[in-house]
Amino acid sequence: MDIKFVKAKTLKEKPDQSNLPFGRIFTDYMFTMDYDPENGWHNATIEPYGPISLDPSACVFHYAQEVFEGTKAYKTPDGHVQLFRPQENFARLNRSAKRLCIPPIDEDFALEALKQLVEIEKDWIPTAPGTSLYIRPFIFATENYIGVHVSSTYKFFIILCPVGSYYEDGLKPAVMHIEQVYARTVAGGTGEAKCGGNYAGSLAATEKANEEGYEETLWLDGATRKNIEEVGSCNIMFKIDGKFVTPKLTGTILPGITRKSIIQLLKSWGETVEERVLPIQELLDDYHAGKVEEVFGMGTAAVVAPIGKLNYAGEDMVFNNDEIGPSAQKIYDTLVGIQHGTVEDPFNWVVKVC
Amino acid sequence: MDIKFVKAKTLKEKPDQSNLPFGRIFTDYMFTMDYDPENGWHNATIEPYGPISLDPSACVFHYAQEVFEGTKAYKTPDGHVQLFRPQENFARLNRSAKRLCIPPIDEDFALEALKQLVEIEKDWIPTAPGTSLYIRPFIFATENYIGVHVSSTYKFFIILCPVGSYYEDGLKPAVMHIEQVYARTVAGGTGEAKCGGNYAGSLAATEKANEEGYEETLWLDGATRKNIEEVGSCNIMFKIDGKFVTPKLTGTILPGITRKSIIQLLKSWGETVEERVLPIQELLDDYHAGKVEEVFGMGTAAVVAPIGKLNYAGEDMVFNNDEIGPSAQKIYDTLVGIQHGTVEDPFNWVVKVC
Ligand SMILES: Cc1ncc(COP(=O)(O)O)c(C=O)c1O
Ligand SMILES: Cc1ncc(COP(=O)(O)O)c(C=O)c1O
Repeated sequence: MDIKFVKAKTLKEKPDQSNLPFGRIFTDYMFTMDYDPENGWHNATIEPYGPISLDPSACVFHYAQEVFEGTKAYKTPDGHVQLFRPQENFARLNRSAKRLCIPPIDEDFALEALKQLVEIEKDWIPTAPGTSLYIRPFIFATENYIGVHVSSTYKFFIILCPVGSYYEDGLKPAVMHIEQVYARTVAGGTGEAKCGGNYAGSLAATEKANEEGYEETLWLDGATRKNIEEVGSCNIMFKIDGKFVTPKLTGTILPGITRKSIIQLLKSWGETVEERVLPIQELLDDYHAGKVEEVFGMGTAAVVAPIGKLNYAGEDMVFNNDEIGPSAQKIYDTLVGIQHGTVEDPFNWVVKVC
Repeated sequence: MDIKFVKAKTLKEKPDQSNLPFGRIFTDYMFTMDYDPENGWHNATIEPYGPISLDPSACVFHYAQEVFEGTKAYKTPDGHVQLFRPQENFARLNRSAKRLCIPPIDEDFALEALKQLVEIEKDWIPTAPGTSLYIRPFIFATENYIGVHVSSTYKFFIILCPVGSYYEDGLKPAVMHIEQVYARTVAGGTGEAKCGGNYAGSLAATEKANEEGYEETLWLDGATRKNIEEVGSCNIMFKIDGKFVTPKLTGTILPGITRKSIIQLLKSWGETVEERVLPIQELLDDYHAGKVEEVFGMGTAAVVAPIGKLNYAGEDMVFNNDEIGPSAQKIYDTLVGIQHGTVEDPFNWVVKVC
């Protein structure tokens, strides 16, 4: 499939790199394509970023048949542009799509489209340490029909926004809260899909956590509330008694690409990594026994998010003196280094754009 | 707040009443209003039905912060127009909105807006038996910001579509399937909210059920898969050994307005109605003991949906010889009669429009 290019009449002014907000400034162009049963995915276009017109009866407004992804493009010190495991994102997008009965995209073609788009927009990629170009591919249902049903038509987009470093002044440990009332998902639900509904349902817990002074919510499993699952926007890793432990992928948590990469990295360093069910009670016991060395979140946005304090049922667990641990720091430096092209990439994770 | 009226240049041709599809034909006008933190809900307008323009970064496309309602307007034989318990719908819309961190609407004002809209569109209300004007109020998040967050801006809509009778040739029993793999929700989730994510997540189960020859999915509770909850688009009632039994509202099922009305109706007839946890094993035991007299769904679309066959783990339970039971028929006739103004309304359920 050819990608049509529609040139913008004027280009926007690039924002100040020293103060980039997350997710509010978009580049000049976006990639779009359409799906209908006769033509499949078609009409691939790189066009000026701008509004979409939809009928009020479009499925997406009523039944949330929508999936998305998040990845980043980085500029290396010598001016090259590169992506981090983007194939994983398109593969996950298709798995999410399948769960929501959305027709799959051609993953190779989507990657090709992304590369073309990023190449066109390469001047938008910030260069300051920790900054990057955030990439948001997403698909939603567009059929003008308000019966509860699988839509017959869809739109796919890739939009881009330059983003600052998650940590303005270096890694800073977060304060989190383990949620006991709200649930994010349950086995058989949509927990392992990156779909809108998971996030809409989680907002209330995050609001409550924020009001109580916590930055984020750590979810337990919805069925028993006994096992640790993941944070609202990242996976979680514990270093307990010298070993790394992270909840295993049982269908209710998002299979994070950062998680997968960190597991691989740790194993390559000879560390022991256990992917398994991790009961909150076990964590509490290990904590009280002084065995919990480090805790950190893992996700595209922050890469590594050290967790200094974790509140459960009124008790504050404090890890590593509320400071960044050596493992979190080493993983962060290595992964960010690979992403930005300053550290060798022995895993072939990086995909060069130009 | 005043409602601005924007007149349409031309009006559409009204569709053939004898063959109205559900949810595909919309009337000439819609009601809209906007929310932002400075003005609250404002800009109330009745305007020509037509497309909306949104930025690709609008929250609704990414995080499904969206809630909706469904109710109907009916024309009585003497030409009056009436609504059925619309206050209940706006109250539920606000409860759904709260769960999804969406600012509440003024319920009285929304009802007033709905009445004005329906009055303007009264010629669109079909008159053939069982037909009506379906009403879809909905709210979604519009902020142009792709961070996972509570949107600061929203749009509220009411759109209308003339719909045919759910049962073209009279009540017909449905064949349903009890889902054992997929889950709809869990306690602490969004099950009792009418939000898009619940429906997006349910599509895969309905697709599977349809492929296997079933019309709909009956959900068990997500945590234990032991207790009966509700159907994909309606609540469920069992008549067992002379008593009516329906799953109680424990936070995971939608508090149906039809369910509530039918319970009230049955009690007014001196029937026993139990709202309680109903284990699937109890239903199986009662079925094998020949005690299950009738089973039916309850919802706005079908009013009463008799269930003739219910498949669980390979076994087909057949109720009332796969025929409509006397209770289902009596409830249907009464409720449809009240809605259409042919049966007296002792409960004050009906709200006159004009
Ligand atoms: C719920 C959730 N879990 C985990 C992650 C981490 O996934 P990844 O490492 O692929 O960014 C994310 C964010 O992407 C997420 O939204
Ligand atoms: C999941 C679900 N349960 C139950 C119902 C029935 O609710 P009501 O009787 O208010 O239409 C509906 C439909 O409205 C529904 O979508």
